[in-house]
Amino acid sequence: MLPRTYEDQNCSIARALEVLGDRWTILVMRDAFMRVRRFEDFQRNLGIARNVLTDRLGRLVEEGILKRVPYQERPARFEYRLTEKGLDLWPVMMALLQWGDHHYPAEHGRPRVIRHRDCGGEVTRHLTCSECGAELGPRDVVAEPGPGVLAAA
Amino acid sequence: MLPRTYEDQNCSIARALEVLGDRWTILVMRDAFMRVRRFEDFQRNLGIARNVLTDRLGRLVEEGILKRVPYQERPARFEYRLTEKGLDLWPVMMALLQWGDHHYPAEHGRPRVIRHRDCGGEVTRHLTCSECGAELGPRDVVAEPGPGVLAAA
Repeated sequence: MLPRTYEDQNCSIARALEVLGDRWTILVMRDAFMRVRRFEDFQRNLGIARNVLTDRLGRLVEEGILKRVPYQERPARFEYRLTEKGLDLWPVMMALLQWGDHHYPAEHGRPRVIRHRDCGGEVTRHLTCSECGAELGPRDVVAEPGPGVLAAA
Repeated sequence: MLPRTYEDQNCSIARALEVLGDRWTILVMRDAFMRVRRFEDFQRNLGIARNVLTDRLGRLVEEGILKRVPYQERPARFEYRLTEKGLDLWPVMMALLQWGDHHYPAEHGRPRVIRHRDCGGEVTRHLTCSECGAELGPRDVVAEPGPGVLAAA
């Protein structure tokens, strides 16, 4: 057994969870990876209370995971974009997605399929392309509605 | 924008978070990957209230992520072990660890280094070995105290 100080105070997973350890926060990040950028769109997609959304977005900006960027001047309007630090969460998102796809399959199949933009292959467990073998990152992929969504439409 | 039903009810990340979307749950899983197995050891490591720990362990057993295995007969005692479904969360744990290591570095260096058991290489972002290139899973690695722990000792 490692010493307690190590377990309690000095673990990178624990530090990551101090920032992310809230379901809404991770769902906001999921949406950000799906290219949602505006408050109203996050709010509608998530069905989240506005004050909770304001709080979670504010926290993510404070941590440098999202940045607030003006897109209109009068009245001033802002959108939220992933920073490099935010984009670095892509492996966490892919790992959660793959585990959910595998262990909690939706009735009509996967709701979302993440494909390599260049060749249409899928993202493997090793974050490579199932077809061409390229090493993939968030800028290399597109999310498509999968069979689970197409069947429901 | 994808239809709301897709976003709300039919997302594998959302389904994964229904099970994992609690900081304590993920920290319990982290400990399980560190080979913690007994209630008292989880409790001591995490400094978590006993009723909360009982609840989180019970939920993880119910979901088939941990299994309860007897290790003593009189009095009956049980320990908690990762199932295959639980072991499948290893990529999530590695992704959180790597993000935390990178973006929230501890003062004296990484508290924990995960090494390929066979050759001592480290786990890359692609869940391969930095030295020999092998594809890695949870059974192929050992966690060692890193410079952050050794400096504090």
